[in-house]
Amino acid sequence: MSTAENFDAVDIIRVKRDKGILSPEQIDWTIDAYTRGIIADEQMSALNMAILLNGMNREEISRWTAAMIASGERMDFSALRTPTGGVKATADKHSTGGVGDKITLPLAPLVAVFGVAVPQLSGRGLGHTGGTLDKLESIPGWRAALSNEEMMAQLQDVGAVICAAGSGLAPADKKLYALRDVTGTVEAIPLIASSIMSKKIAEGTGALVLDVKVGSGAFMKNLEDARELARTMVDLGTDAGVNTVALVTNMDTPLGLTAGNAIEVEESIEVLAGGGPADVVELTVKLAEEMLAAAGVTDADPAAALKDGRAMDAWNRMIEAQGGDPRATLPVAKESEVIVAPEDGVLTKLDAMSVGVAAWRLGAGRARKEDAVQAGAGVRMHAKPGETVKKGQPLFTLLTDTPEKFVRAHEALEGSFEISASGNYQPTALILDRISR
Amino acid sequence: MSTAENFDAVDIIRVKRDKGILSPEQIDWTIDAYTRGIIADEQMSALNMAILLNGMNREEISRWTAAMIASGERMDFSALRTPTGGVKATADKHSTGGVGDKITLPLAPLVAVFGVAVPQLSGRGLGHTGGTLDKLESIPGWRAALSNEEMMAQLQDVGAVICAAGSGLAPADKKLYALRDVTGTVEAIPLIASSIMSKKIAEGTGALVLDVKVGSGAFMKNLEDARELARTMVDLGTDAGVNTVALVTNMDTPLGLTAGNAIEVEESIEVLAGGGPADVVELTVKLAEEMLAAAGVTDADPAAALKDGRAMDAWNRMIEAQGGDPRATLPVAKESEVIVAPEDGVLTKLDAMSVGVAAWRLGAGRARKEDAVQAGAGVRMHAKPGETVKKGQPLFTLLTDTPEKFVRAHEALEGSFEISASGNYQPTALILDRISR
Repeated sequence: MSTAENFDAVDIIRVKRDKGILSPEQIDWTIDAYTRGIIADEQMSALNMAILLNGMNREEISRWTAAMIASGERMDFSALRTPTGGVKATADKHSTGGVGDKITLPLAPLVAVFGVAVPQLSGRGLGHTGGTLDKLESIPGWRAALSNEEMMAQLQDVGAVICAAGSGLAPADKKLYALRDVTGTVEAIPLIASSIMSKKIAEGTGALVLDVKVGSGAFMKNLEDARELARTMVDLGTDAGVNTVALVTNMDTPLGLTAGNAIEVEESIEVLAGGGPADVVELTVKLAEEMLAAAGVTDADPAAALKDGRAMDAWNRMIEAQGGDPRATLPVAKESEVIVAPEDGVLTKLDAMSVGVAAWRLGAGRARKEDAVQAGAGVRMHAKPGETVKKGQPLFTLLTDTPEKFVRAHEALEGSFEISASGNYQPTALILDRISR
Repeated sequence: MSTAENFDAVDIIRVKRDKGILSPEQIDWTIDAYTRGIIADEQMSALNMAILLNGMNREEISRWTAAMIASGERMDFSALRTPTGGVKATADKHSTGGVGDKITLPLAPLVAVFGVAVPQLSGRGLGHTGGTLDKLESIPGWRAALSNEEMMAQLQDVGAVICAAGSGLAPADKKLYALRDVTGTVEAIPLIASSIMSKKIAEGTGALVLDVKVGSGAFMKNLEDARELARTMVDLGTDAGVNTVALVTNMDTPLGLTAGNAIEVEESIEVLAGGGPADVVELTVKLAEEMLAAAGVTDADPAAALKDGRAMDAWNRMIEAQGGDPRATLPVAKESEVIVAPEDGVLTKLDAMSVGVAAWRLGAGRARKEDAVQAGAGVRMHAKPGETVKKGQPLFTLLTDTPEKFVRAHEALEGSFEISASGNYQPTALILDRISR
């Protein structure tokens, strides 16, 4: 880059430290120089902290995101064709991460039913929120790694693919995220937004629906921050020519009745079979409607496609195309323990973070990137907030292959639920806000 | 340290990022863990930026300073004796750095005249402010490096020593300062104050007078910041049992009529001979009075000791004790150029930063630690603000051994002075404030 010698890392840090605005050229140089090792980690972490505390404006975040996209390759789905020879529309969904959030599994094949291609590049779980790939890998034979050619062929033939993102997309983000993780600078909305959106824009999708979680089990703990993150990402997508919409959804309580890997696949299949927990169905249908609308399809009825087997057919084809056997028996944990209701009443609270941490400690998640997960581990819930429970009735079944893990899972669930004898329960909406351009 | 495993660097960064207060144990662990390499540079720089932007309270800064002192050795002057067998009082001065600031040179022997020992551990210059050791090294034979034993013997016999600080004092500060220098976090008052005071307290002086410079040629550009830095350092000294006073002094214009190395020694000798520029004499006498008062000597008349030769005698002994020849001819630059007044009038401005940068570019200072300095290089000034000048009269003489340096020195001095034909000049005080416990 010919402008490289015009900038100095300390000068750029000082601009943001002193609440200034970084120029487009300074941002381009920063991302490029950091990727190439010219800006040292200790300089980038000081800049990250200044960004966290002093913010970036819309133009800065947009340029920062563009520079991260420019650090790697971009995918291009313009070769996908409709049956009549037109360019096939593409739509993608991204969730900021929650407990029991298996929505991608039924959603991708459901949207594909209506002729919109869904290139869903996903990740693995770290900490208390699970990873979509970890869940699907509990299906015997299924593989996450596809070449670009395999991915394109599957999108053309099946219409939906859920696979691992290649390392070529936004490599600057990968390096930057690892740094933020160890320097207390993860929680910066401009950096979160640009991290997510650089990968999603580089993926080349035409439409994008964001599911921004808010609540105890989510990264964003209050509605104001969640709305700001949603607005920032919608602006970034719009600026990059991607038709982007965000839903802000409640994550105070887990989605559905399962948090784990195989047990979440099982619940997803229930939804694809026309059943499943009401909240999982509601969010799956709503996100499908948003994705289809953003991709230009307005006359679809996704709820019907769950009921009549079309979504299940698409799921079966999608799993088979990646080597999986959709009819195989899923792994089951070797050991289980049950926690029962200590009294009669209405379940008024079921804390998402507690359930997420319990599932993680049981072996469903990983503490470090190199850890393996247990396919059968997790937490089954037997009641949702608002339901009446009887003393002695099971509330949770804890599942693991390694029984020494039960103790710390029990600890995580202490105080995780409340039962009201008087029966007063104030239901909260699942979908809290919708943010569009 | 037994508590080491109780803390995590990311948790500590988050406390300060979220405007919290670090506990004494967290601070002790942070400094110890950083010194031992357990906290990585990129973590410390994120913490530094959070401290710069969110501050530290008095207790935090005091503990931070104590932890840096504890990272190394402490000096002890309690073995020094007065002629009557009592413990000799010690006093030290620290300047935050200015242009033409040679005050330490006449000051140390002047205070020693009155029986107070002056252990002046000094540094070399970096950037536009000169270093006391660089100036003294222009004296043939003089050496900056003394063993602790040599230093103690000289303090007992001569009463004043100006030498290089050993690397054993506050090693955490050394590592931290190098990091701050490349991460845009130098300008944090808590970190500046603890950096200076950790070394001064570890030095073991009983009394300390701080000269906090403010103005164009100083690190602190406005009076409010300078006062805050002065107050923070006086509090730190007081908390550590050091009798500490700070003067806030003007650095909009250089001190005296010289900025360089040998030419500043020459000017210091003029002051020790009872002459010299009025501002250098004023500040030397004022700082001597403060040091003596802080050390418990209230009946001294330092101005008289400059006039009657006692200070010069002490200077000669001090220089000789470190191998220097106080009567040797000082080095002279090989080349010179003169800048003359373009018109008649009163000199109303003479900018310290411009003169400092010009002297630096002429070879008096260094850009990198490993650079050598030219003993004879620098800038002589021929008029001070408030004086009447005639068109064609010399204003500056530029001195260097390497004439290719003149061009950039001239550039530095463009716009550095103003001459008013109307003669309106508003004098500013040299000493702007005095801050004590």
